[in-house]
Amino acid sequence: MNRVFNFSAGPSMLPLSVLEKAASELVCYGESGMSVMEMSHRSPDYEAIIKDAEAMLRKLMNIPDNYKVLFLQGGASTQFAAVPMNLIKRTGKADYAVSGQFSGKAFKEAQKLGYDVKCIATTKDDNFDHVPVITKDMIRPDAAYLHICFNNTIYGTKYGYIPDTGDIPLVADLSSCIISEPIDVSKFGVIYAGAQKNMAPAGLTLVIVREDLLDYAEEKMPTMLEWKTMAENDSMYNTPPCYTIYMAKLVYEWILSIGGLDVMKEMNEKKAKVLYDYLDSQDYYIAPVKADSRSMMNVTFVTGDADLDKKFASEAGKAGLKNLKGHRSVGGMRASIYNAMPYEGVEALVAFMKEFAKNNPKK
Amino acid sequence: MNRVFNFSAGPSMLPLSVLEKAASELVCYGESGMSVMEMSHRSPDYEAIIKDAEAMLRKLMNIPDNYKVLFLQGGASTQFAAVPMNLIKRTGKADYAVSGQFSGKAFKEAQKLGYDVKCIATTKDDNFDHVPVITKDMIRPDAAYLHICFNNTIYGTKYGYIPDTGDIPLVADLSSCIISEPIDVSKFGVIYAGAQKNMAPAGLTLVIVREDLLDYAEEKMPTMLEWKTMAENDSMYNTPPCYTIYMAKLVYEWILSIGGLDVMKEMNEKKAKVLYDYLDSQDYYIAPVKADSRSMMNVTFVTGDADLDKKFASEAGKAGLKNLKGHRSVGGMRASIYNAMPYEGVEALVAFMKEFAKNNPKK
Repeated sequence: MNRVFNFSAGPSMLPLSVLEKAASELVCYGESGMSVMEMSHRSPDYEAIIKDAEAMLRKLMNIPDNYKVLFLQGGASTQFAAVPMNLIKRTGKADYAVSGQFSGKAFKEAQKLGYDVKCIATTKDDNFDHVPVITKDMIRPDAAYLHICFNNTIYGTKYGYIPDTGDIPLVADLSSCIISEPIDVSKFGVIYAGAQKNMAPAGLTLVIVREDLLDYAEEKMPTMLEWKTMAENDSMYNTPPCYTIYMAKLVYEWILSIGGLDVMKEMNEKKAKVLYDYLDSQDYYIAPVKADSRSMMNVTFVTGDADLDKKFASEAGKAGLKNLKGHRSVGGMRASIYNAMPYEGVEALVAFMKEFAKNNPKK
Repeated sequence: MNRVFNFSAGPSMLPLSVLEKAASELVCYGESGMSVMEMSHRSPDYEAIIKDAEAMLRKLMNIPDNYKVLFLQGGASTQFAAVPMNLIKRTGKADYAVSGQFSGKAFKEAQKLGYDVKCIATTKDDNFDHVPVITKDMIRPDAAYLHICFNNTIYGTKYGYIPDTGDIPLVADLSSCIISEPIDVSKFGVIYAGAQKNMAPAGLTLVIVREDLLDYAEEKMPTMLEWKTMAENDSMYNTPPCYTIYMAKLVYEWILSIGGLDVMKEMNEKKAKVLYDYLDSQDYYIAPVKADSRSMMNVTFVTGDADLDKKFASEAGKAGLKNLKGHRSVGGMRASIYNAMPYEGVEALVAFMKEFAKNNPKK
């Protein structure tokens, strides 16, 4: 098997050992006589899997007991609607910081639903090359929550700090940085994340919600979007995405086996450093993101010449470095180096970048 | 490997050849150098998979060109909200027939959302032992749609006919009978189905919707629940449940390879006949469902003695016939014999039933 280095922003690489384990027990799981894909979600075998997945994630992220862990469907995009529908009744209005495309979508979704929402900070005028500085006084004192997107996949930025929102619950989309490093869950009211970047295949959405925030759901909202209903039913109000949860469990198990999120962070920092150090050491490629907002997961760069960018992505692909083309909305290149990207992948990328720069002098 | 016969109502058995193929290419798909689980949903490799899945399903079900096929998340339970949110604006009110638990949930969800909905027929007073007879004059002439659940998993009933609703769109939940036999799609306005019974692992929801019904969505509804948005984005408004769609494709491929839905129906009829013929030939077990409403997919029966029922499910499990316990809301036994259940499984079940009756005389 000729395995490539896949720099896709998501769905993205999974650890090889996880894929191999999944393949080895796909047809028959343990002594069950069936595939995990075939198990009733109410069977003891499957209940053990989903309970283990939750227990492992709680251990990994050190999730306090007063937070519920929900395994849902629909992606972060569904949570863009679920967040205001579950929370806005707390006070009747909510604030948003817009630091890129997905936080913008979250804000627009709340507007579309007719809610009183305000964008209190945005870096749009700077092409989102950094995240906003948010201080408590910027937030409306009677906001039901402040919503942020912690890591901006498309622009390659990340909050280098957790905004202090005082008593106002902080709601954060962590889709592209969840379980990449330790994070203090107690600083958040709600954390949510699509699984398809660091956690599992696509089709699973994680919601971590503080228990006291479960009591504000709209009456006239889809039951399937109610966090409280899902919490009361241990994510099994209806059939959950069973196999994808099992895959997440294998990924959690893998991270625990290598030493947890402290070790994961070290590994991720090391990978990101190689890439950023190289970018800072030369002037063929430009890294548009301001230093204090650089993402550890998504590293963006351009040559400054759209044709060269195109050639870069194409030739890299042929060299086994896949999906380096930037998002269609911004162009350039983007290397997504999530947990499962090996160090060797980043080394190979830097080597390719050097070679490409040498072989393709700018006019 | 000691493979069991799994009579689970869903998630349920998948064809062994499908599981084996999935296992063989889980780590590396074709020449891609990666797992399908790792593919960007915007990559040519993955786009080929989802396009093939749709093309195969269209061929299998003979879906007319003026119907859109959507691959969504959230289960049929999410569609219980999506149906009225997408359609009720057509006239402002809608009608429901309640033939079991899930059609009841669909009706209640529409009520919860505050809509003017009416239950025009129910067989609740008969413990749902048959489906209602629905005639055109029972439906409000200005109903936006009539909603039915075509096969009732829990009670083991199925509509033996497609209700004639005239110009009023018929909306049907086909979760537990989809692709089990040919069905005339043109008689429906909308068909939807959770995948985890006949189609794929849990985490995928199929919606087949007539194009002229895409224009009635509420303004203030979650974007992710809008069929039109999903149709305009070929089910990729956000990241779809990529791997589960790939699994569905393998299942469609399998059915096409054995001859399509005509052959599938023959096989399913043969399995159901063995079981119903035995039930009709003896008086130890009672089959509560009226003859004209019998489901080909879910066969329910009781001994009439709750202790014996319990013993039956337990001993059957030990004999490799798993998940025969009826739904917790009705008790008794239920054998779900979906597409992937081999004929040998039903034979083994009947043999076990005979043996059990002999060894456990009623007092």
